[in-house]
Amino acid sequence: MRERGVGLIYLHRGADLFYLTGISRGGPEMTDHNTYGDYVQGAYIGADDLFVLVGPRMGGSRWKAMVEDKPYIDDLRIVGESETPKKVMGEVLARFKLNGAGVMVDDRAWSHATLLLKEHLPGCKLSLANEIISPMRMIKDADEIATMKKAGEITDKVYGEVVNYLKRGQTEVEIVSEIDYQFKRHGAMYSSFVSAARFRSPKEHPGKRVLSEDDVISFDFGCVYEGYCSDFGRIVYVGDPPEKVREIHDKVMKAQAAGIEKMVDGTITAQELDRVARGIIEEAGYGPNFVHRLGHGIGVTVHEPPFLYIPDDTLLRTGMCFTVEPSIMLPQSWSARVEDVVMVTEKGGVPFSNYHKELTII
Amino acid sequence: MRERGVGLIYLHRGADLFYLTGISRGGPEMTDHNTYGDYVQGAYIGADDLFVLVGPRMGGSRWKAMVEDKPYIDDLRIVGESETPKKVMGEVLARFKLNGAGVMVDDRAWSHATLLLKEHLPGCKLSLANEIISPMRMIKDADEIATMKKAGEITDKVYGEVVNYLKRGQTEVEIVSEIDYQFKRHGAMYSSFVSAARFRSPKEHPGKRVLSEDDVISFDFGCVYEGYCSDFGRIVYVGDPPEKVREIHDKVMKAQAAGIEKMVDGTITAQELDRVARGIIEEAGYGPNFVHRLGHGIGVTVHEPPFLYIPDDTLLRTGMCFTVEPSIMLPQSWSARVEDVVMVTEKGGVPFSNYHKELTII
Repeated sequence: MRERGVGLIYLHRGADLFYLTGISRGGPEMTDHNTYGDYVQGAYIGADDLFVLVGPRMGGSRWKAMVEDKPYIDDLRIVGESETPKKVMGEVLARFKLNGAGVMVDDRAWSHATLLLKEHLPGCKLSLANEIISPMRMIKDADEIATMKKAGEITDKVYGEVVNYLKRGQTEVEIVSEIDYQFKRHGAMYSSFVSAARFRSPKEHPGKRVLSEDDVISFDFGCVYEGYCSDFGRIVYVGDPPEKVREIHDKVMKAQAAGIEKMVDGTITAQELDRVARGIIEEAGYGPNFVHRLGHGIGVTVHEPPFLYIPDDTLLRTGMCFTVEPSIMLPQSWSARVEDVVMVTEKGGVPFSNYHKELTII
Repeated sequence: MRERGVGLIYLHRGADLFYLTGISRGGPEMTDHNTYGDYVQGAYIGADDLFVLVGPRMGGSRWKAMVEDKPYIDDLRIVGESETPKKVMGEVLARFKLNGAGVMVDDRAWSHATLLLKEHLPGCKLSLANEIISPMRMIKDADEIATMKKAGEITDKVYGEVVNYLKRGQTEVEIVSEIDYQFKRHGAMYSSFVSAARFRSPKEHPGKRVLSEDDVISFDFGCVYEGYCSDFGRIVYVGDPPEKVREIHDKVMKAQAAGIEKMVDGTITAQELDRVARGIIEEAGYGPNFVHRLGHGIGVTVHEPPFLYIPDDTLLRTGMCFTVEPSIMLPQSWSARVEDVVMVTEKGGVPFSNYHKELTII
């Protein structure tokens, strides 16, 4: 901060604050479930070593508990429900010695906060805190890797339970609920996104159709375990799969394996890795059916830089973690995708989920 | 917009955009589940009648489907995964004839978007779109009321099923999963917040303790049905409740009933209504145990203005919807709360959930 002439960073309750301090997000960051004055809540971190945390009345006791083991937090300021949040922010800002220094703001903080910062500190230069924090987040340390491995193990277990659970006649609601239930049972804090179990016809929300002969389920789900995400994809076929299904599934597995092998520290960029896997699918004549990037960084958020696609030329380094998730989607028909979270090492990629990648047949 | 000298409103994919257009939020607005370039996505609405929607590649086909029945949307611009989101925003902004007019921004849009707007439009005056939209959202129209009534009916049904499901020996995970499952089964899009079924000792996440004699479960949950929220609270006692439990529960029911009766169009302000209910709890000697506001506005978000507390002096009008949720929480001991969503009418409050409010005993 000092090197960049920044006097203050404001982080709302989200991924960056969790990453730096362990202060938990309250769930999947639902802006729908706002607390009174949420837009001024979060951490105010000064280059002059002052750290003020602003929290809500609702759930305030949990914020107090989180502060207790963090001696570097100088003050917890709870926003009372009869206070004006804007005034609370003004009072907090007045405690920092800014002397015209710049202010960095969480890129995911709400615009309301940004406009209030501008109003309280007219003339201050605002920039994004992720300029500093994003490069730190890309390389996972030993503790983070251990947590992400555990998230992968839980995901393997949950998928195994779900495969055992599957039966003809089930609805999507039943299957999705089973995934959620199994994640909770295995200690995951929450699903990192709505678990998707889609039958052949794509639907936005789980419908009432029941699982039947010749259905394909494309599983794509993940959890958050101790603040870190998993992301996982496999295909289940109900009945005896036609040759075409076996063929596209095979190509996808090959493309993923080729990508994982090349994830060697310092030898390849993000977009070059995409080319490796995409090349195999293109050679097989399915290039136009692989419609998305090969994968994305993952950690305290499900999708985070670097991205395995044009134009990202980040050099892959040991400790970076990516999803590797090639797919072939035939319009209005079969689709195949295999997805795992994989860490870059000096010897190539190491997946955190290890459930077999073959087409599962029930 | 024209009256206020505003040339453009930028709304991200969230509550305000859903309210104005029906364009769905993708779930409980998880910033953790970001799509590539999400911070520039959303609606760019010009006072010159141009409406450009910017959407993600991932799920883009759903955005296309949503645009089809909305002739007022002039263009859907999908952010490709190989594009620079900042450039996409610049290209979109260049299509509007601003001539120095002001720009309004969604208060929940991300700071990243706000800073980019400032960069692309230096010197433009930024203000909050909720200055215009929030007063519109406070008064629900007939369609909104019908949807919220239905959300209340679903919540009643789900609570009934959950009460029947309860048994000694169950874990919190089982109970919470049952709530989620029942909401899905009854057609709710998602739980509006993590369903809470707390045994007597407060826990942040559902623990492994099993439901036992003399436990109190404080249910506080809700759903989102067709974009509108419910919010509901009841108390279950396991076994034969002591007199103290019956007493505090009785006071809470009386306080809620007194509040609901006074919700008459044009006769009382938000903070005055809080005083009515709080007075009853104070008279009974439990004032210090009612630690939060009486309730909050509710609609496309769970918590929204007006708030039933100091200093909100909004006059209650027909069509406004609030939670009315007095509580008595004895430290480290029993707690009582009853919560319903209630609409203001000319004859007093009309609740959307109608499950009986007595202490449920199993």
